[in-house]
Amino acid sequence: MLKASRLLRFMSERVERARRRPARVRRLITLLRALLSQRGEVSGARLAAEALLAYESLEPGEVDALFDSLAADFSPDPAEVRRASDAYSRDASPQNLRRLQRVVEPERQELFRRLNLAPGGTAKIVALRQRVLEGLAEHPGWTALDADLLHLLSSWFNRGFLVLRRIDWRTSASILEKLIQYEAVHAIHSWRDLRRRLQADRRCYAFFHPALPDEPVIFVEVALTRGMSATVQPLLDHESPVGDPLAANCAIFYSITNCQKGLRGVSFGSFLLKIVVEDLGRELPRIKTFATLSPIPTFRKWLADIAKTSPDIGALTSVLAEIDASGTALHKTPAKVRVELTQLCAYYFLHAKSDNQPLDPVARFHLNNGASLERLNWASDVSSTGISRSAGLTVNYVYRLSDVENNHERYARDYRVIASGTIKRLARHCSLSAGNERVVVDSL
Amino acid sequence: MLKASRLLRFMSERVERARRRPARVRRLITLLRALLSQRGEVSGARLAAEALLAYESLEPGEVDALFDSLAADFSPDPAEVRRASDAYSRDASPQNLRRLQRVVEPERQELFRRLNLAPGGTAKIVALRQRVLEGLAEHPGWTALDADLLHLLSSWFNRGFLVLRRIDWRTSASILEKLIQYEAVHAIHSWRDLRRRLQADRRCYAFFHPALPDEPVIFVEVALTRGMSATVQPLLDHESPVGDPLAANCAIFYSITNCQKGLRGVSFGSFLLKIVVEDLGRELPRIKTFATLSPIPTFRKWLADIAKTSPDIGALTSVLAEIDASGTALHKTPAKVRVELTQLCAYYFLHAKSDNQPLDPVARFHLNNGASLERLNWASDVSSTGISRSAGLTVNYVYRLSDVENNHERYARDYRVIASGTIKRLARHCSLSAGNERVVVDSL
Amino acid sequence: MLKASRLLRFMSERVERARRRPARVRRLITLLRALLSQRGEVSGARLAAEALLAYESLEPGEVDALFDSLAADFSPDPAEVRRASDAYSRDASPQNLRRLQRVVEPERQELFRRLNLAPGGTAKIVALRQRVLEGLAEHPGWTALDADLLHLLSSWFNRGFLVLRRIDWRTSASILEKLIQYEAVHAIHSWRDLRRRLQADRRCYAFFHPALPDEPVIFVEVALTRGMSATVQPLLDHESPVGDPLAANCAIFYSITNCQKGLRGVSFGSFLLKIVVEDLGRELPRIKTFATLSPIPTFRKWLADIAKTSPDIGALTSVLAEIDASGTALHKTPAKVRVELTQLCAYYFLHAKSDNQPLDPVARFHLNNGASLERLNWASDVSSTGISRSAGLTVNYVYRLSDVENNHERYARDYRVIASGTIKRLARHCSLSAGNERVVVDSL
Amino acid sequence: MLKASRLLRFMSERVERARRRPARVRRLITLLRALLSQRGEVSGARLAAEALLAYESLEPGEVDALFDSLAADFSPDPAEVRRASDAYSRDASPQNLRRLQRVVEPERQELFRRLNLAPGGTAKIVALRQRVLEGLAEHPGWTALDADLLHLLSSWFNRGFLVLRRIDWRTSASILEKLIQYEAVHAIHSWRDLRRRLQADRRCYAFFHPALPDEPVIFVEVALTRGMSATVQPLLDHESPVGDPLAANCAIFYSITNCQKGLRGVSFGSFLLKIVVEDLGRELPRIKTFATLSPIPTFRKWLADIAKTSPDIGALTSVLAEIDASGTALHKTPAKVRVELTQLCAYYFLHAKSDNQPLDPVARFHLNNGASLERLNWASDVSSTGISRSAGLTVNYVYRLSDVENNHERYARDYRVIASGTIKRLARHCSLSAGNERVVVDSL
Repeated sequence: MLKASRLLRFMSERVERARRRPARVRRLITLLRALLSQRGEVSGARLAAEALLAYESLEPGEVDALFDSLAADFSPDPAEVRRASDAYSRDASPQNLRRLQRVVEPERQELFRRLNLAPGGTAKIVALRQRVLEGLAEHPGWTALDADLLHLLSSWFNRGFLVLRRIDWRTSASILEKLIQYEAVHAIHSWRDLRRRLQADRRCYAFFHPALPDEPVIFVEVALTRGMSATVQPLLDHESPVGDPLAANCAIFYSITNCQKGLRGVSFGSFLLKIVVEDLGRELPRIKTFATLSPIPTFRKWLADIAKTSPDIGALTSVLAEIDASGTALHKTPAKVRVELTQLCAYYFLHAKSDNQPLDPVARFHLNNGASLERLNWASDVSSTGISRSAGLTVNYVYRLSDVENNHERYARDYRVIASGTIKRLARHCSLSAGNERVVVDSL
Repeated sequence: MLKASRLLRFMSERVERARRRPARVRRLITLLRALLSQRGEVSGARLAAEALLAYESLEPGEVDALFDSLAADFSPDPAEVRRASDAYSRDASPQNLRRLQRVVEPERQELFRRLNLAPGGTAKIVALRQRVLEGLAEHPGWTALDADLLHLLSSWFNRGFLVLRRIDWRTSASILEKLIQYEAVHAIHSWRDLRRRLQADRRCYAFFHPALPDEPVIFVEVALTRGMSATVQPLLDHESPVGDPLAANCAIFYSITNCQKGLRGVSFGSFLLKIVVEDLGRELPRIKTFATLSPIPTFRKWLADIAKTSPDIGALTSVLAEIDASGTALHKTPAKVRVELTQLCAYYFLHAKSDNQPLDPVARFHLNNGASLERLNWASDVSSTGISRSAGLTVNYVYRLSDVENNHERYARDYRVIASGTIKRLARHCSLSAGNERVVVDSL
Repeated sequence: MLKASRLLRFMSERVERARRRPARVRRLITLLRALLSQRGEVSGARLAAEALLAYESLEPGEVDALFDSLAADFSPDPAEVRRASDAYSRDASPQNLRRLQRVVEPERQELFRRLNLAPGGTAKIVALRQRVLEGLAEHPGWTALDADLLHLLSSWFNRGFLVLRRIDWRTSASILEKLIQYEAVHAIHSWRDLRRRLQADRRCYAFFHPALPDEPVIFVEVALTRGMSATVQPLLDHESPVGDPLAANCAIFYSITNCQKGLRGVSFGSFLLKIVVEDLGRELPRIKTFATLSPIPTFRKWLADIAKTSPDIGALTSVLAEIDASGTALHKTPAKVRVELTQLCAYYFLHAKSDNQPLDPVARFHLNNGASLERLNWASDVSSTGISRSAGLTVNYVYRLSDVENNHERYARDYRVIASGTIKRLARHCSLSAGNERVVVDSL
Repeated sequence: MLKASRLLRFMSERVERARRRPARVRRLITLLRALLSQRGEVSGARLAAEALLAYESLEPGEVDALFDSLAADFSPDPAEVRRASDAYSRDASPQNLRRLQRVVEPERQELFRRLNLAPGGTAKIVALRQRVLEGLAEHPGWTALDADLLHLLSSWFNRGFLVLRRIDWRTSASILEKLIQYEAVHAIHSWRDLRRRLQADRRCYAFFHPALPDEPVIFVEVALTRGMSATVQPLLDHESPVGDPLAANCAIFYSITNCQKGLRGVSFGSFLLKIVVEDLGRELPRIKTFATLSPIPTFRKWLADIAKTSPDIGALTSVLAEIDASGTALHKTPAKVRVELTQLCAYYFLHAKSDNQPLDPVARFHLNNGASLERLNWASDVSSTGISRSAGLTVNYVYRLSDVENNHERYARDYRVIASGTIKRLARHCSLSAGNERVVVDSL
């Protein structure tokens, strides 16, 4: 009795929701139902194209209504799940397991699989997930919808299907334009800027998916240098002289950008770095060091937090505030400040945690990939972003092929941070460290 | 208490199975476990390549042991499923649903996703499923393993990812060689045979998947003719004169072949036909009729079955036995025999059923795609296969674009067989029909 | 006796020239001689690459010395030509003709053919000719060298070898960059500018030669419009709305640019226009009018010349001088001035001649291609170039496929200028015309 | 007076020839004249396509008439050449030289340049020259026509324009079919045969010209072996096991074929060999020996010639006649015969001459490329061609990169034949040698 009444409630809620929906959304849902039905099997491509066109012409409010419906109505039927789950509870047979597997899969999954038949379907589904993600905070009910999209896109964007392409000046303008648009670490200001980043002593690689031929999924920019770069701006300067790639002994990964917001949660970065390191190693065997020149995005934020309780650091942050005001006067900072900040930064890497992992998101990415913390660079990124987030500091993570797997496992097991002796020493000498030893470190 | 003892039994069985496994299989399973672990995240491509290499070097018996293990040990943990299922039974919350979804997904799925990182991984996974399918009858325990592979491959081989390519004489020899090898309907005996099938009045189209660049997934062969072909051999004859495609008014789909046995259960045929019909319609607007010239693979078998109880038909089958013995003397068959067999064949299409659907597998495929039964052709395929399976008859299914969707829905709803008036009339006049009217039909 | 002394003089001059040559040029010439010798046959590619490298590192003065030598020393030997020519004069046999043909061909020809073996050789030879052309005025002695290069490049760049490619936003940046750099009619100021010229209602086509894969040889820019454009700036405005190409009835060729200065004298323009007209006609059958919107580059110059003797026109030119000073105030020009200038322009087209052909170089190009003069457009190109050369006027040449061949022949026979009735009437009413009828023409 | 009458005779002969020509040829010549005229400039592509179509539909006799006309009427006007030649004889000015150059160039040249505008024009002109060559012996009057075509095609098929492509099993069937068809050294009997020649331990490279995308110009087949092959059949056997290319230390060029008969006289072979040697050297650095395994095509013929006067050799040739009769019994030949024949063969290479060059055409080709004669191989090619032309012997020519240029020059200077010590010794011991030393040479 209870069950029947619950089912009734479930049905009547669904009917009520449908009644309140805008007419265009109702029509689109009818189309989606047709796509899921027998008709979808024979007229799938046409129905899918129609449905995506209808979706793209919805007003924002209508999109919300559609997503509400996708999240609520294309879900597993709780009663059916209950029955299958009860059956399995009674008898854990393979048949009951398969039935359970079948009923817990939301109809949405099949819906999106069929939408993919439309020309350009994959790109549109990725874009749809981006809108889901953007509204997720406001619409927690979409979580299940998002989870299904992530599950589907993880399967479709399996790294085994990605194709590595080198990007250079012979690449199509429509792809290059996207690099300009997507670059998330060091903005590309003009085509001249971009061109410098594609010359003989630079490399750019991207992953592409066969279903998105003109859309990079992720790209990385590399500078081929003599010695491990300690400063960012010379790498970006479009007037810097072009070096000889054959003379380089170091590959600096100075920027890595995920392009498709709709693919958040599907990770490509480590795989891309790994492949590029192998490729470059083959092409240019003189290159022995593969390192990043990375921002430290939450250092200043962390500094501000601890400054609230520590007067010494409070003094430092006011120095930084002056620097913010006066522009890029970082080179004139007194040695004492320089040393203290660098020590604090080392301390931040080794000791500032969130859920046992390093607080710094870039550190989490590279350490989990098996890199180690190699060197801190003072006055290294004097762009306004560089100063306001990282106090102008950058860090080199180094990828040593022989250590990568080992490092990764130690990090994966207990979040062990592998760092160079210098960085460890700097952290020990930091005013926040227990022993409180304070020594001017010259080796910076 | 019970639960603990059951878990214990589950564990000890697993240990016992592992003990009995050959050493090489054990080593490979260790590798697969590593691939699934943290290490797999950073060294996935290498581990996947190693694992697939190890798999390919196993002896047949070892492969069986491996599949046993994949089917048994990489499955969901029944105890965990039970717990999640119990929790959901108590409280059908979204959280409990997601947990249930997570625990019912076998580890195998993730394992195959990671194996896909190896170069050529997708092709190897498809080949692996083919071996699973080949052993399934003997090893019913592999059913779950097969189901998971099918689920995964259905997602990866979503029709939206397939690429249509026209195959002609400029296509790579390595692909053409595969057509020769795979052709399942009308064998291609030589390169000269193949070449005739690729000339101006023929078309060949195939679907390719980006991860299998040199392997067709499915292909269809088309003859461009004046009038709807009633006989097969002239279409295949490599010495037949080449017609002018611009003068053709009819496209005959005389062969369609699924190439990848490992993709059984993922259907591409209807989608391919649909796209090819659209493509040809655009390229050659004079073509108004899109039809097949299809075998009737189970007609003789059905005939033999009913002959056991019907003396009239018994007489017919002895005529057929004579034909089998004397070779292709079909043209000399007395008119009476010809008429009776054709009527029986029409009857077979309209009334011989299995689970409410037509007995004939080719009919099921085309009728479900929305085609209609148009015409029966006497002495149409006089190859030994043609005679032994279809009594030399063939059938034209016609695809009328305006009717396809409607036909499909009627078939999908209640397996309604759409047939031409002639075919219906033939069936009515068949000796097996109730009214038992017997008229010589001249319009054949 | 005479002959011997002449040969002696010829030889001693050659030796003297060689003596005065810079060392690096002497070494390069030795290399070129080796390339021409037996060694060149077996080591041609290496020698050619070396020679071109050596050439590219010469100082300007050394290049002059090299060209002097190529012009003087790699020429036919006059004595030998004389002998062959004498022999032929005595006996016009085929043998004597062939010998004559052989000896009149300068060694340079073979030299350049062998230089072409170097990687990138063709591009370098085209560049070399550009330098020859640039120095020709100052070094009349290089005329023969230039003639040989032109002969060779005409053969190699036979239009039958050129490949038409559509240029759009998916084209490689390195090619697009060259359009920006080469555009000779309406400068492209930025990538944004360029992008507008490649959108749906624009077309850009270029000819490429297989030996210069990244270098356009010539390109044309087309706007697809409703109605024949009368003004230039809206076509160039990068903020103009993008029209629907399927709604266009007119294709305006608003810019055509020869890219390779080293190919001067090898003509591609007519062939390109012809092919593009055919291509567009096939792709967009609604387009009925193929017209240019062309500058009138020497109109102001001609005006200034005749103003010297004609006071009326002198008054006009002072009006123009005011316009020059005040910027683009062309719209405010009194109607009388407008009419007079337009009449003068029509007169200019029909009556201003040089060697019986129209004075205007663009008119010569299009009329010779079979186009006709259709319409003059007032205040049509208000760029500073447009005003200073063409008084802001432009002209539409129309290509009517049915008339092109006929028009061309009439032009080719006696330089007949085919013009519309309006243009003829305007010219008749011009103050310079005999009858001197002056009527305000409203139909402008 | 004389001149006028000669011109008159020239004109009237031309008119008479025209009168006797078949109507279709007359019409075609009218078309060709139009193509050469002003009209050709604006309607070239259309006229050229029409003309080539008309040419292709001529009957053999009509083709002869056309070629007669091309050879006779599209030639330089003797009177004009005489005038220009007289003028130059009087005054060897650059102007007079240029005029002379202009008038000695036959109109045919320009005609063929314009025919090249037709789609597929280049291929058709190459085919046309093939027909000219085939009829040359019978029509000596076509010599000038042929010379012009050779001149033109030499310019167009400059080696700098050729593109090297590796041919393998992924190459288009239409190209592979041409290899089967063209192979001139060791016939390819089937696709299976061909496939073996494209496997991992074989290489095939071809030159292509951009205007003939599906037609190889020349190709070479290479076997990668351990040790320098001494016998042909194992290389050709399609059942031979496939070796590991990385283990090979030797590249055997066992077949090189010019594909386009219409390009006779334009040489590509040395350039192809040179590039392939460099390519292979880069790809497989273990390969140290680049050698051919070549037939000795005129050895038996030479042997038969000298046998007429030398009784000893007469005895040998009757042994050979027996071998011819008995099939491939070469292995059973008495050692004495084996030694004598090998010595004679060495003698043949070093002493049998025609115009100071080796009699053997293959030797002329490789020696001129800078190869040296390395080794003779007994019972090496036991095919019927191998025995009937080369007595079953083959020869290895070796390309040593360090010696190639030097060898070539010595050969080019005075036809010096560079041979190994063994070959020289064999020749010295030959019965035909002066000293007449006869020793059994074991080192064979």
